[in-house]
Amino acid sequence: MAKYSIGIDYGTLSARALLLNLDNGAECAEAVYEYPHAVMSEKFLDGTPLPPDFALQHPRDYLEALKAVIPAVLNKAGAAGSDVVGIGVDFTSCTVVPAKADGTPLCFDEAFKYNKHAYAKLWKHHAATPYADKMSSLLAGSELLARFGGKFSNEFLFPKLAEIADHAPEVFDAADVFLEGGDFMTWTLTGHRTMSRGIAGFKAMYTDEDGFPSNEVLTALHPLLDGVVTKKLTEEISYPGESVGGVTEAWAEKLGVPVGTPVSAALIDAHAAVPAAGIVDGNEMLFILGTSGVQMVMSDEVAPVGGICGITKHGYIRDRYAYEAGQVCLGDHFDWFVKNGVPSSYTEEAKEKGVGIHALLTEKASRLSVGESGLLALDWWNGNRSILVEPDLSGMILGISLSTKPEHIYRALIEGTAFSTRRILDAFEEAGVSVGNILVGGGIAEKNPLLMQIYADVTERELRLVGTKQAGALGSAIYGAVAGGAFPTVKEAASVLAKQSDTVYRPIPENVSLYRKLYAEYKTLHDYFGKGENDVMKRLKAMKTEK
Amino acid sequence: MAKYSIGIDYGTLSARALLLNLDNGAECAEAVYEYPHAVMSEKFLDGTPLPPDFALQHPRDYLEALKAVIPAVLNKAGAAGSDVVGIGVDFTSCTVVPAKADGTPLCFDEAFKYNKHAYAKLWKHHAATPYADKMSSLLAGSELLARFGGKFSNEFLFPKLAEIADHAPEVFDAADVFLEGGDFMTWTLTGHRTMSRGIAGFKAMYTDEDGFPSNEVLTALHPLLDGVVTKKLTEEISYPGESVGGVTEAWAEKLGVPVGTPVSAALIDAHAAVPAAGIVDGNEMLFILGTSGVQMVMSDEVAPVGGICGITKHGYIRDRYAYEAGQVCLGDHFDWFVKNGVPSSYTEEAKEKGVGIHALLTEKASRLSVGESGLLALDWWNGNRSILVEPDLSGMILGISLSTKPEHIYRALIEGTAFSTRRILDAFEEAGVSVGNILVGGGIAEKNPLLMQIYADVTERELRLVGTKQAGALGSAIYGAVAGGAFPTVKEAASVLAKQSDTVYRPIPENVSLYRKLYAEYKTLHDYFGKGENDVMKRLKAMKTEK
Repeated sequence: MAKYSIGIDYGTLSARALLLNLDNGAECAEAVYEYPHAVMSEKFLDGTPLPPDFALQHPRDYLEALKAVIPAVLNKAGAAGSDVVGIGVDFTSCTVVPAKADGTPLCFDEAFKYNKHAYAKLWKHHAATPYADKMSSLLAGSELLARFGGKFSNEFLFPKLAEIADHAPEVFDAADVFLEGGDFMTWTLTGHRTMSRGIAGFKAMYTDEDGFPSNEVLTALHPLLDGVVTKKLTEEISYPGESVGGVTEAWAEKLGVPVGTPVSAALIDAHAAVPAAGIVDGNEMLFILGTSGVQMVMSDEVAPVGGICGITKHGYIRDRYAYEAGQVCLGDHFDWFVKNGVPSSYTEEAKEKGVGIHALLTEKASRLSVGESGLLALDWWNGNRSILVEPDLSGMILGISLSTKPEHIYRALIEGTAFSTRRILDAFEEAGVSVGNILVGGGIAEKNPLLMQIYADVTERELRLVGTKQAGALGSAIYGAVAGGAFPTVKEAASVLAKQSDTVYRPIPENVSLYRKLYAEYKTLHDYFGKGENDVMKRLKAMKTEK
Repeated sequence: MAKYSIGIDYGTLSARALLLNLDNGAECAEAVYEYPHAVMSEKFLDGTPLPPDFALQHPRDYLEALKAVIPAVLNKAGAAGSDVVGIGVDFTSCTVVPAKADGTPLCFDEAFKYNKHAYAKLWKHHAATPYADKMSSLLAGSELLARFGGKFSNEFLFPKLAEIADHAPEVFDAADVFLEGGDFMTWTLTGHRTMSRGIAGFKAMYTDEDGFPSNEVLTALHPLLDGVVTKKLTEEISYPGESVGGVTEAWAEKLGVPVGTPVSAALIDAHAAVPAAGIVDGNEMLFILGTSGVQMVMSDEVAPVGGICGITKHGYIRDRYAYEAGQVCLGDHFDWFVKNGVPSSYTEEAKEKGVGIHALLTEKASRLSVGESGLLALDWWNGNRSILVEPDLSGMILGISLSTKPEHIYRALIEGTAFSTRRILDAFEEAGVSVGNILVGGGIAEKNPLLMQIYADVTERELRLVGTKQAGALGSAIYGAVAGGAFPTVKEAASVLAKQSDTVYRPIPENVSLYRKLYAEYKTLHDYFGKGENDVMKRLKAMKTEK
């Protein structure tokens, strides 16, 4: 009789479950639940406008998703719930849910129904910038700050808590607990509340040595944060692949799985893909190429890398240091261009040929040789995450002439993101963290062979596709299988269940040498505009927002 | 009985005549003749492809135009040819026609019918770059070179002659005379061959002090040029408003004007607009804003201005120094954007509203305040003429974000050209050539009030529209009237016949102070990319053309 694990991947707009056959690694069924409230960034529930940089979610959507997708995958596959040995969860992060001690989200309370600060603050809620900056200055010069590339993100837990304390003390007071979406789900399923070590490390600055940041620092960040760790966070830590507890009776009934089915500690969504891609040790890197881009690699040591998103022990795999860097604008970049910069003659040509605009542009751009466009782009349409950590930088295209065509620009945008990736890899190498070959997942990796070849040529590394479209959910199922005891370690589970594709992109020598020239130009401009020599981008942004 | 003058304006794609009533300045009739051969830049007459940077014309079109437009304006206005007291001609320049001693264009000869070098080389024929560069280095450090901003243009006469000598010695040998289109027309009409002082000064480097460049320099440029001035050019000079001679019997019959009607020395097309705008002394400047942009101003002294197109005594008005600067890419720039960068949603919106794309973009861009786009552009889509004289520079847009819309870019392109204009005015002022208020003519000036307001705000000067759409033809008619003796001087003729509009754009103080900030940013980037600190644009262009 086959045994199964279920992975649930909570993304930005939907949650997806995958039923995984643990004997042969088959992905037996998938189900998706789109959040009815999606992301509230312009209007709140009651129709009132939200402040700039807000991004809220309704926690009811998370619970409804669970009830929908787990029974759905079991039904679709005709599998018995009793054969499910474990469940794993990954979640966007840092997504903060204020809750009552009994596990109810605070916003379910009638008194807080129309209080925007009582809702889940999604990872891309960016209104906590002043608190993030204050925290960076409070911890200036510390080893902790160095682990986060020298600057804390406005997406992190404590800046978001300080924002709530500052703008909605009544919410801060009424919430018994603040927790990440992933931990909220494992608590919901099992009735046992722990904090995922990976999430705590990456988003709450938790280290083995010092735990959370000191109460002194937190109180300095905001007086209401005095004692917040013991009063309102979760001090019990759980590790990747470790069971948080078993599914409660109430949820077992709703989901159709046995009472007590082990649930693994939650992972950050992109991170769950690491073992799914077969990366459990060594220096292979995982890229996830979607709306934004994430680079993940492991090492046995802490070596602060300038401008990366974070370094956390036990982040992906127990006992190893997890490194994450990121590009804040990737797919978004190409979508912006298609929406704003492609003329109607191209739209019509695509229609006539029966292909999408991306496909048409890719086809035309593929016919160009390296350097033929004459263009160079800095891909900072949404600021720069790694390695500059400067949200106020902006995009640039240089080299435009009267003969520049949309496909030239499209290719230059792809190349810009490739140079940005290369710059991140160089930062790792400069810090002594070696980066080997690369596994690549995410929607763009599957869809755009031109982009993949350019990335191989620019990074001078072999790029292999991950062998599943649902790397996050597959990874969660792997962690779930370990929590359920089907495998002793994540490494052993991955050796059976991970999926790598046969599709490999290898650097083409003549392209490599031309791209080295272009990358040298890119680096000069990257430093000129990004490292203070000419802060024109920040000044223009300031003029823009003064309006 | 009314007396008339006829101005004929030979443009890039058509010739236009204007019949001017000299008593009241009324523009009585206009007629246009579009050249059947237009510009041959990709294919030659016989269908064979032309080399890169070629731009040829068929001189037959010039002659046919004459026969069409002069009778047409007389007919339209019901005016008697006998009341025409003078004819003036302006012409694109430097446009070089190889001819036989009897006035027949060399390409009319069956032996040269399919020789591309026997045709008129239009101003924008850009294949003579190596010869222009060689000439600049032969005259390095000279006062002459300084008068041309430190670099001779590849559009000039001697580089074009050297190109013919090098690539088609048989044409060089068979041509008895090489002359400018404007001089070719006055020769045709009168049978008397002179060289226009304005054209000689601006395009053949002629000065009162030294005449043409020395035979030594010309022979060094190409051995076949030994003695070319005396053998194949025209050493008799005629001045603006001076009569070259009277219309011949043969042409008088074709055109319906009296035999002997005086014909004024030819002007460069943009230059003829100077008196038409009422500029005959003082420090007022004329802008012509069309496909490209031209700035013209006069002074009583030679003061070399870095990077301008040229300084020539007697260029517009006898005895005064004429200064010209230029922007090589203006209307072309906006047309490029409309063709290549405006999405179909905008095309549809324009259709629904029943307006053109330029009008829609202008309307949307008008609603933006200064700095709101967050963008800054270097307008070098076709290189930079003034003040950098670098054809290999290219365009740049900086400040792009995910919220950037087409109207933001459109406005930034307009602003980029405005900053470029301001940089030119500053160069004049820095050299001690004062620039007062500004008269503006050309298609864009009439059509785009947003652009005009931005130019007023950025240049911090009053901009008044020229009061005619045909400033070139009107100016030619003014020179013709003086040649015909209707007025003693161009100044006196202009005081009656020039046309200024009541439409004046004045700087708006709050915009001025914001644009000063943006202009400061522009200047930094202009110098960084344009003056050798980072030659990335040239290196990218080199990579592109290596393909």
